[in-house]
Amino acid sequence: MNALLNDIIKSCAHYTEEGAVANYIPELAKADPSKFGIYVLTHFGQQFSAGDCNAEFTMQSVIKPLILLMALFDSGIQAVHDLVGVEATGKPFDAFNYSDQALTSANINPMINTGSIALCTLIKGDTYRDKFDRLLEFTRKIAANPNMDIDEAVYASEKATGNKNRALGYMLKAYGMINDNIEDVVDCYFRACSVKATCADLARIASVFSNKGKDILTGEQLFDPKYCKYVNAILMTCGMYDGSGEFALRVGFPAKSGVGGGIMGVVPGKMGIGVFSPALDCKGNSLAGVNALEILSRELDLSVFL
Amino acid sequence: MNALLNDIIKSCAHYTEEGAVANYIPELAKADPSKFGIYVLTHFGQQFSAGDCNAEFTMQSVIKPLILLMALFDSGIQAVHDLVGVEATGKPFDAFNYSDQALTSANINPMINTGSIALCTLIKGDTYRDKFDRLLEFTRKIAANPNMDIDEAVYASEKATGNKNRALGYMLKAYGMINDNIEDVVDCYFRACSVKATCADLARIASVFSNKGKDILTGEQLFDPKYCKYVNAILMTCGMYDGSGEFALRVGFPAKSGVGGGIMGVVPGKMGIGVFSPALDCKGNSLAGVNALEILSRELDLSVFL
Amino acid sequence: MNALLNDIIKSCAHYTEEGAVANYIPELAKADPSKFGIYVLTHFGQQFSAGDCNAEFTMQSVIKPLILLMALFDSGIQAVHDLVGVEATGKPFDAFNYSDQALTSANINPMINTGSIALCTLIKGDTYRDKFDRLLEFTRKIAANPNMDIDEAVYASEKATGNKNRALGYMLKAYGMINDNIEDVVDCYFRACSVKATCADLARIASVFSNKGKDILTGEQLFDPKYCKYVNAILMTCGMYDGSGEFALRVGFPAKSGVGGGIMGVVPGKMGIGVFSPALDCKGNSLAGVNALEILSRELDLSVFL
Amino acid sequence: MNALLNDIIKSCAHYTEEGAVANYIPELAKADPSKFGIYVLTHFGQQFSAGDCNAEFTMQSVIKPLILLMALFDSGIQAVHDLVGVEATGKPFDAFNYSDQALTSANINPMINTGSIALCTLIKGDTYRDKFDRLLEFTRKIAANPNMDIDEAVYASEKATGNKNRALGYMLKAYGMINDNIEDVVDCYFRACSVKATCADLARIASVFSNKGKDILTGEQLFDPKYCKYVNAILMTCGMYDGSGEFALRVGFPAKSGVGGGIMGVVPGKMGIGVFSPALDCKGNSLAGVNALEILSRELDLSVFL
Repeated sequence: MNALLNDIIKSCAHYTEEGAVANYIPELAKADPSKFGIYVLTHFGQQFSAGDCNAEFTMQSVIKPLILLMALFDSGIQAVHDLVGVEATGKPFDAFNYSDQALTSANINPMINTGSIALCTLIKGDTYRDKFDRLLEFTRKIAANPNMDIDEAVYASEKATGNKNRALGYMLKAYGMINDNIEDVVDCYFRACSVKATCADLARIASVFSNKGKDILTGEQLFDPKYCKYVNAILMTCGMYDGSGEFALRVGFPAKSGVGGGIMGVVPGKMGIGVFSPALDCKGNSLAGVNALEILSRELDLSVFL
Repeated sequence: MNALLNDIIKSCAHYTEEGAVANYIPELAKADPSKFGIYVLTHFGQQFSAGDCNAEFTMQSVIKPLILLMALFDSGIQAVHDLVGVEATGKPFDAFNYSDQALTSANINPMINTGSIALCTLIKGDTYRDKFDRLLEFTRKIAANPNMDIDEAVYASEKATGNKNRALGYMLKAYGMINDNIEDVVDCYFRACSVKATCADLARIASVFSNKGKDILTGEQLFDPKYCKYVNAILMTCGMYDGSGEFALRVGFPAKSGVGGGIMGVVPGKMGIGVFSPALDCKGNSLAGVNALEILSRELDLSVFL
Repeated sequence: MNALLNDIIKSCAHYTEEGAVANYIPELAKADPSKFGIYVLTHFGQQFSAGDCNAEFTMQSVIKPLILLMALFDSGIQAVHDLVGVEATGKPFDAFNYSDQALTSANINPMINTGSIALCTLIKGDTYRDKFDRLLEFTRKIAANPNMDIDEAVYASEKATGNKNRALGYMLKAYGMINDNIEDVVDCYFRACSVKATCADLARIASVFSNKGKDILTGEQLFDPKYCKYVNAILMTCGMYDGSGEFALRVGFPAKSGVGGGIMGVVPGKMGIGVFSPALDCKGNSLAGVNALEILSRELDLSVFL
Repeated sequence: MNALLNDIIKSCAHYTEEGAVANYIPELAKADPSKFGIYVLTHFGQQFSAGDCNAEFTMQSVIKPLILLMALFDSGIQAVHDLVGVEATGKPFDAFNYSDQALTSANINPMINTGSIALCTLIKGDTYRDKFDRLLEFTRKIAANPNMDIDEAVYASEKATGNKNRALGYMLKAYGMINDNIEDVVDCYFRACSVKATCADLARIASVFSNKGKDILTGEQLFDPKYCKYVNAILMTCGMYDGSGEFALRVGFPAKSGVGGGIMGVVPGKMGIGVFSPALDCKGNSLAGVNALEILSRELDLSVFL
C-alpha cells in the first residue's frame, strides 16, 4: 500500500507543474507548488503515507464541512436546513447567486462561501471569537491533534482582502438571513479558513466521517451518525466546487477541497484520505490531488458507484 | 421484506393526495393520483413488491439514463463527455441555461432536457426513427421485457405541445452543438419519453445499474462497467432534478425520476428499486415515491453515505 | 450642408477599416466594408447626401421599428403593449432573456429579436406571407419607394441559418405568448430582415418618424402621431442594441441600426437621416455610421438633450 | 397654467391612495401618502405650482444625477465613463448585476445604486465627509437654496439598515473598482440620499439641466453644458429605474425619481419640473407623480419624441 501511494505520487508529480497556486489571497500565492503528499487511514486502523505528508497548509474550504458539522451539532438539522439549502448552485463557490432579487436558503448550500458564512451564526458562543474557538477545539478533537491552530499571516491576508466575503455577508444580512455584525461573522470565517493542517490531519478527520462519526483508533463516538450522513451527502454533490460532478465520475466518493491545496476524501466504511498539493485546476481543486485520488479509487475500487 | 414494502405503501399513501399530477402535457394530467406501487430486485435474485406494481406509466425522464447509456455504448465516453457536461446546473430541468450568451457543454448535463436531446444525436442509426428503435430495443433488453413500447397518446401529446424542447433543440443547433434536423431529433426524444414501464421494469433496469452492467438473474453482461459507473455518478448528482441534493441527504443512492411518477433507485452492490406514484412534489419528483425510498433506505441501511 | 456631409464621410472613413462586417449570416459576410454613405432629408424638404448613398443593403434590424409600427397600426397600442414590453433588457439583441423560467412581456421589447418576432403575429393577414406583403407595402409607402424588395440570397441565408431565431420563436410559443406555426412566423421575420434599402430610403422613413407620421414632401399623414411617438421613444431607449445608452450620450436622438450596416436617425421636428457602412462595432452598430452621426449631431446641435 | 396644475393635482389625487409608501427604510414608511405637490419653472422665468409644493421629503435617488454631475465636474467625463458604464441594466436599481462573475463598468450605470456609490469616489475631498459637504454645497447652489440639509432621522435609518448598499460597496471593492473604506463610501451615499428638498428645489435644479447648465433666473453658468448633456441622456434611458422605457413612452423627457416620492423632470429648452407624492408604483416611482407628468407632457406637448 505504501508502494502504491509512492507510485501515485511519482506518476502524478507532473501535475504539480501544470496547475496554478491560488493567488487571490496574496499569502497563498507564496505556497511551494512542488509540494505533494498523501495520507490514508483505513478502518482497520492502518496508516499509510507518501510524499510531503507532514507539510502544513491552510484548510481554506476544507473547514466548511467542519463548520457545517459544528452548526449541526450545536443547532440541529432543522435549523441548519432552514438557513442553508442543500442543492448544487451550478455556479462558482464565491458567486452572488440569487434568483431575481430574492436571496433565500434555496440559492445557497453549506459548501459555498455564502452558506458557510451563514452557518457560522449557528455555532454556539457568546462572541464570534468564542464560536471560532469552539470550532477549532472541535476540529482538533476530530483530527486528534491538539496543536492545530491558525496561520496568522494567512488570516491577516484573508481579513485584509476578503471583500467579496464581506459583500456576501452583507447580502445575507440585507435579506434578513443573518442579523449579527458582519465584520464579526466574516472574521470567524476568515479564522476558520486559516486553520493549518497536514495530510495526516485531513485523513484522520475524513476517517471519522467515513465511520459514522466514530474515531477509528479510539472508538470514541465524536458526533451523531445522522450529522455524519448529512455532511457526506453534501460533500458528494457539492464538495469539489463546480467540479463535483466530474469528481463523482472520476473518483466516486465524498470529498472536500480547499484553495490551499488540500483535499480530504471520505470513503464510507473503508477509509479517510488526506492529500495535498497547492497547484490548482481551473475549478480551484488541487490538480495533482484529484488525479492521485482518481488512481487510488481505481486501484482500490473505492467508488461508491462501483 | 414484502411486509416492509406493504407497510411503506400504507404509511406513505397519504402523500399521493398531497402532490400534484403533472399537467404540462395534457395526456399526463389524466393519470390516477392514487396509484402507488413499489418493486425490489436484490442481488440475491429475490423479488419483492407491494401496491400497484404492475401499473403502467410513461418513463419520461427515467429514460434519460438509458439515452445516456445508449450514447456511451454507441459513441464512447469521450464523445459523450465532449458534447454534454456533467455538472449540476442549479436550475430546473427545462431551463435555458447558458452563461452570457455562450451555450457550451459546461452548461448542460445528461439529466436535463437540453443534454438528453443532444445525446440522442450520439445514438447510432441512419434515421432518428432507427435511433429510437435501437434505444427501445436496448431498454427492453435491460428490462428483460420485450413488450415495452410507447404510449401513443402520450407521444402525440408530447409532440403537440413540446415547444420548449423544440426551443432547446434549436438553441443547441444555433450554437453548433448539433447539426441534424431538430424536428427529427426531438421526435426521437418525445418517443423516448413516452415509453411505458412498470415498477418491475424500473427495478430490473436499476438492478443492472447496481450490478456493474450485469443482469442479476441471467448473469449476462449487458454493457461495460465503466458506462455503468458513469451513469450512476451522474444520477447521484443530477438524477432527481434540482432536488438531487435533498435526495442524497434523505435517501443516499443514485436514482432517476420522471414526471410520469416513476423513480428508479440504484443501490450499488445491493439492489434495484422501482417505485411509482404520479402525484409530484414541486421539483417534479414523485412525492410518495421519494418518501417511500427514504423509509426503505433507512430501514435497510441503503445510503452510500452510511 | 453637402460639404459638411462630405467632410464627415472623409473624416470617418478610417472607421470602415476598424469595424468588422457581420458574419453570423454567411451572405452578410460578403458585404464590401469600404462602402460608406449618408443621406439627410430636412423638414424644409431639402435633401443632402454624400458617399455611397445609393448602395443597397439589407435592412436587418432597421425593419424592427416598421414591424412595430405595422403592429401598432393593425392591432393598436394596447395589444402591442400587452404582448411586448418596453424596457431595455440590458442584454444583447438575441439573448434568451427571462427571469427564473417565466418568459413574460416584461422580459422583451420591440427592438430585440424575441419581441420583433412576437410582433409579427399582430400584423394583419391571413397567412404569414400576407402579413409580410402588407409590411413590405407599408414600408414602400413610407419610404416612397415602390421598388423596395427583399434580397433573395440574404433571405435564403437567414432561413438556412436562423436557428437561434427559431429557438426564440419556440420559446415564445412554449410560454403561450404566440400560438402560430413557428416556421411561418420566423419566415415572415426572415423576409422582413432581408428587405433591401438605400440611405435615401432610410432617410425618407426616418423623416416621417421625425414629423409625427406625416410625409414631409407630400404632406400625407401616413400613420397616427401617437404610434410615431411610441416608436421614437423605444428607439431612444433600445434602438441601438445594448449600445443605446452610449448612443444617447454621444448622438442624442432616436435611431435604429441593423447588422447590415444601416442606421436610420430620427431627429424630431428637424430631419430624417440614413447612414450606411457595413463594418460594425462590438455591439452590432455600424462603426463609421455612429461616428458620422455623432459629428453631424454636434455640428448641427441635433441632440434632444441640448 | 396654475389652473392646469391644480386640475392635474385634482385628477391624479386618487393615485395617492393606490401606490404604497416605501417601507424598506423604516423612517420612509412614516411618510404621509396623501401629500401631493408640483412646481414648474419655465425658461421664461415663470414659476407655477399646485398642491403640497412646499412639503419636504428626502431626495433619495433624485440625488444620483447630482452625484454624477459632481463626479463629472470634479473628475471629468473620461474618469466617470471609465468607472461607471451608461447602458440600462434591465434590472432593479439595487440588483447585484454582473455577468458570470466579472463585475465591470459595463454592468452598472450612474442611476443604479452600485454606480452611484462608485461615483462618490470621484468627488473631490480629503475625507468622505468633505466629499459629501462638497456635494451638498453644489446641490444648494444649483437649487439656489442655501438651507438644504439632510434629514438626520432618515440618514440614521439608512445607515442602520443599508446592508444591501454595503454589500454592493464591498462587491465594487472586491472587483477592484474602488479602493476606499466601504463604510466611509456608503456613509457619503447615505447622507446624499437623506438630503431634504421640496418640489420647488427639484424644479429649480431641473431647470438648470434643461438650460445647458445655466441658471434661468440669474443667468449664471453653473457647470459645463457637456456635463448637462451627459446627465440628461442618462436620465432618459435610466432615470426612472426599470420603468424608464415606459416613462419615455408616456412622458417623453429626462427625469429622475426617488423612493422618497420626488421626481425631477427636465424638459430640454423649456422648463424644469418638480413633483412629489410618496405613494410609489411597483418600480419605485411616485405613482401620482408619473401620472401628473404624463398629463402635463400631453397638455403642453413636452415630449421630445413629438
